[in-house]
Amino acid sequence: MENHAVLLVQCPDKEGIVVEITKFISERGGNIISLDQHVDHDSRRFFLRAQWELDNFEIQEEERISTLFGQRVGQRFEMDYKVRFTNRKLRMAVFVTKASHCLYDILYRNRSRTENWNVEIPFVISNHDTLRDDVEPFGIPYHHIPITKETKPEVEAKQLALLKEHDVDFIVLARYMQVLTDDFIKEFPHRIINIHHSFLPAFIGPKPYHHAHKRGVKMIGATTHYVNADLDAGPIIAQDVMHVSHRDSVKEMMRKGRDIEKLVLSEGIRLHLQHKILVHNNKTVVFD
Amino acid sequence: MENHAVLLVQCPDKEGIVVEITKFISERGGNIISLDQHVDHDSRRFFLRAQWELDNFEIQEEERISTLFGQRVGQRFEMDYKVRFTNRKLRMAVFVTKASHCLYDILYRNRSRTENWNVEIPFVISNHDTLRDDVEPFGIPYHHIPITKETKPEVEAKQLALLKEHDVDFIVLARYMQVLTDDFIKEFPHRIINIHHSFLPAFIGPKPYHHAHKRGVKMIGATTHYVNADLDAGPIIAQDVMHVSHRDSVKEMMRKGRDIEKLVLSEGIRLHLQHKILVHNNKTVVFD
Amino acid sequence: MENHAVLLVQCPDKEGIVVEITKFISERGGNIISLDQHVDHDSRRFFLRAQWELDNFEIQEEERISTLFGQRVGQRFEMDYKVRFTNRKLRMAVFVTKASHCLYDILYRNRSRTENWNVEIPFVISNHDTLRDDVEPFGIPYHHIPITKETKPEVEAKQLALLKEHDVDFIVLARYMQVLTDDFIKEFPHRIINIHHSFLPAFIGPKPYHHAHKRGVKMIGATTHYVNADLDAGPIIAQDVMHVSHRDSVKEMMRKGRDIEKLVLSEGIRLHLQHKILVHNNKTVVFD
Amino acid sequence: MENHAVLLVQCPDKEGIVVEITKFISERGGNIISLDQHVDHDSRRFFLRAQWELDNFEIQEEERISTLFGQRVGQRFEMDYKVRFTNRKLRMAVFVTKASHCLYDILYRNRSRTENWNVEIPFVISNHDTLRDDVEPFGIPYHHIPITKETKPEVEAKQLALLKEHDVDFIVLARYMQVLTDDFIKEFPHRIINIHHSFLPAFIGPKPYHHAHKRGVKMIGATTHYVNADLDAGPIIAQDVMHVSHRDSVKEMMRKGRDIEKLVLSEGIRLHLQHKILVHNNKTVVFD
Repeated sequence: MENHAVLLVQCPDKEGIVVEITKFISERGGNIISLDQHVDHDSRRFFLRAQWELDNFEIQEEERISTLFGQRVGQRFEMDYKVRFTNRKLRMAVFVTKASHCLYDILYRNRSRTENWNVEIPFVISNHDTLRDDVEPFGIPYHHIPITKETKPEVEAKQLALLKEHDVDFIVLARYMQVLTDDFIKEFPHRIINIHHSFLPAFIGPKPYHHAHKRGVKMIGATTHYVNADLDAGPIIAQDVMHVSHRDSVKEMMRKGRDIEKLVLSEGIRLHLQHKILVHNNKTVVFD
Repeated sequence: MENHAVLLVQCPDKEGIVVEITKFISERGGNIISLDQHVDHDSRRFFLRAQWELDNFEIQEEERISTLFGQRVGQRFEMDYKVRFTNRKLRMAVFVTKASHCLYDILYRNRSRTENWNVEIPFVISNHDTLRDDVEPFGIPYHHIPITKETKPEVEAKQLALLKEHDVDFIVLARYMQVLTDDFIKEFPHRIINIHHSFLPAFIGPKPYHHAHKRGVKMIGATTHYVNADLDAGPIIAQDVMHVSHRDSVKEMMRKGRDIEKLVLSEGIRLHLQHKILVHNNKTVVFD
Repeated sequence: MENHAVLLVQCPDKEGIVVEITKFISERGGNIISLDQHVDHDSRRFFLRAQWELDNFEIQEEERISTLFGQRVGQRFEMDYKVRFTNRKLRMAVFVTKASHCLYDILYRNRSRTENWNVEIPFVISNHDTLRDDVEPFGIPYHHIPITKETKPEVEAKQLALLKEHDVDFIVLARYMQVLTDDFIKEFPHRIINIHHSFLPAFIGPKPYHHAHKRGVKMIGATTHYVNADLDAGPIIAQDVMHVSHRDSVKEMMRKGRDIEKLVLSEGIRLHLQHKILVHNNKTVVFD
Repeated sequence: MENHAVLLVQCPDKEGIVVEITKFISERGGNIISLDQHVDHDSRRFFLRAQWELDNFEIQEEERISTLFGQRVGQRFEMDYKVRFTNRKLRMAVFVTKASHCLYDILYRNRSRTENWNVEIPFVISNHDTLRDDVEPFGIPYHHIPITKETKPEVEAKQLALLKEHDVDFIVLARYMQVLTDDFIKEFPHRIINIHHSFLPAFIGPKPYHHAHKRGVKMIGATTHYVNADLDAGPIIAQDVMHVSHRDSVKEMMRKGRDIEKLVLSEGIRLHLQHKILVHNNKTVVFD
């Protein structure tokens, strides 16, 4: 994989922003291979993702580029921005309960040489011991940390300690059936990815397939979103659906739904890993 | 179009129902060309749709078949059933407000020789005069009946009079932006088809595209359902969706959504016309 | 509709192209509201579409912008480019034979105030008189020009005369069942849009639904493409598909397929009208 | 899982077939829980799948039911039929080369308690040793049998010996990049399931993603089919597609395509395991 720089920017729209950004890159020898920019019509907010080759670029460190970009361009336009190199391996923790389909899909993609995920999984955390034998053959540590209402604060403290110790960049809740506290979420703003087994905002909360069956819908779906303080209400990253019929029992809906869940979750992870997501006003801008 | 008989049945499951039904048809010379039956696993309810050729069938009237079937089979198994001939043209009234896309799609399909809809549209009713010029060139009468909160009872009485006078079988609300009263709905149980511009149960009520845009969903959809006493809560007949992105404004979502709305509504009409829908427990069984 | 300028560019990739383009726009007071650029990995070819507000732009004519852009930027980078204003109404001729579904969809969208198509249809041409009554109520002239193998040259000459007389920008073949000669096609390079009733390259040529039925496929589709000298082999603009089953006869496949055909064709027209398509190596780049 | 009997029937259409079949089942105490029947309009061929509960059925062995059904009903109507119990575990051999995505998906589903696959995998065969470590952790033997043009006859003999020794019911080619000989195929008629990485009949043969990329299609797909003597021309079981754009390189198409391939292959396996497929005239009838 060649090493590229990615720049993600959002700010109030003004004339001349794109030219300032592209000048910053070009004048230092960067060859832009993709640039996607648009101004939201209603909010007049500017969004941009640019990717350039680093071979002849005169600065070769993420942080130095970031600092300089801020001084020369970012501050002037009140930008919220970040610079990332594509060869930086992100560190992703996976939380699960008992369902294995999303977990397996993630472990397989991570291990496969073909998926182009540049990620490292330092560990899997679960409130049950059920999936240990599914994880350890992949050479990944499995931490079983049981949780009850009473122990939640200390459990989260323990989890946070692990996350910090292993320098984790973001967390994936691969069907983790526990609600995180606000304090926990605040530590990873827009860096906790959840899969919900319905097309949100339909069927928020537990047992969505049961509710879908009862309502008699003709489609079921799944939604990947960043976790925020409100249940199943964070910024949506990706969604997909599948047709069902009156013949499908709840169990059959669950079976069909698992395939959408795992694909939509992996799609969300891919977009996050490739720095293709911006968040504004509890909504995502996905450059793809 | 050849003339076939269609039988729709639902009842509590018991052994031997299918054989009794097929014997009834075969012994009278009917050649069954399709039969679709299943027992719902949870409710143990039996559902069936059968279609047979009438050429050599010894009874040639819908009602006489229906009566005899009730005596010989239906009553014994406590069946809720109906018999319909495919060459009977159903009479469909269309209600609209100002949006023309669903209306146009219906009028075009009805006029087209290729669509295989066996239907007659005695009139279009609207609470505005806006669409008169879209309807009359198709040779269909257009009744402009304005409505206010105060006049709703007398307006509905007027509508019902028209519906009865023209012997209307069922009503299609092709983006009719008025809530019908319970009394009106009771006159056409499971015979009023509505299109709602969201994938229900998400975004019930007015302005679903605005809510979808605000929530930042990545899919929009449309739902055809029978109208019951609760807003947007009747039995769902068909649903479909389409991907959207952060680039789509509310207006753009509306534009895209129109294509799904008209297709999903026409699909619901087709299924109703071909007697492919049963309703049980506020859910549909769609034989297709 | 506000008036914007659109710039479409393709050229061999080199460093600094984006900055030169954006400088050209910004220095003359243009506020870019969307910019989409990418470099094809294999061919190292550069593609870009930019759109900017014209309110404060110092040049207010398409052609003068185009000329100046060529002098300052285009020639230097060997660009193939064009500049278009969004408020310029394009003139679109529609060719049909006997099938009305695509035609109707186009006429309806054109007439509808909601579709945002900025187009004028000076006339419809057909080799049959069948659809006259479908066209004239829309206030559009209908030219019936019969065609045989022998008369094809003179018929095409007559068609070309009409197209020139009415200053037609592009042609839509809305199920026009005639093969155009190379000489005709050369007059409208990448400006003739055809709908083919299969997912190309499957089922090239006539009767694709018959072939699809015979092969027993589980999906049928439609393809919009620019016409080139080879049958059904021009650059693909848009495609979509739909599931079918063993229950679907050829006739039923045709019925279902019509809905995809008309949507996919209208999507192609929309993309063309909004200047979102570039062609390179017999393939399209679609900025959407 | 409860044990049910499944009956699959095809024959020339005649009056009274359904009633004879349902009588046969009912008179012996079978409660039919689903029955799906239709007559193909063009060929006048009759197709049926029936499933009934075995609790009170007077015959409790597949083979005895089959024999008796033949004597009482099958022979009279020249039926091609089979009877299967749902609790009979089928034995499925998996052939692979080097790509692991379909293989993994199969192994995971087989191991998962939730998928409802009633299958046993006695071994995996590969012409390379590459995937041994992916298979053996699942507790399934891995046979590495290299193959060259010259050794093909003896290799196939060896494979057939293994298949017979382990009493294999059907074979899944999970991206097995070898063409089987006609002699081999004849041993497993309609019992070899292949996944082809295109929406057939587009892009038959090797490197379909390369051809798709070159042609500039806007959708890629995958097809599961039974293998027959002609390359990629056997009866199609299931197909699905996914949108792609000009941004997608061949490598990216391959990445996206893997997800469709594995889902479409698993869908084909599920339908085969649940005895939902009939083959006639090189086409499938899929009861689902």
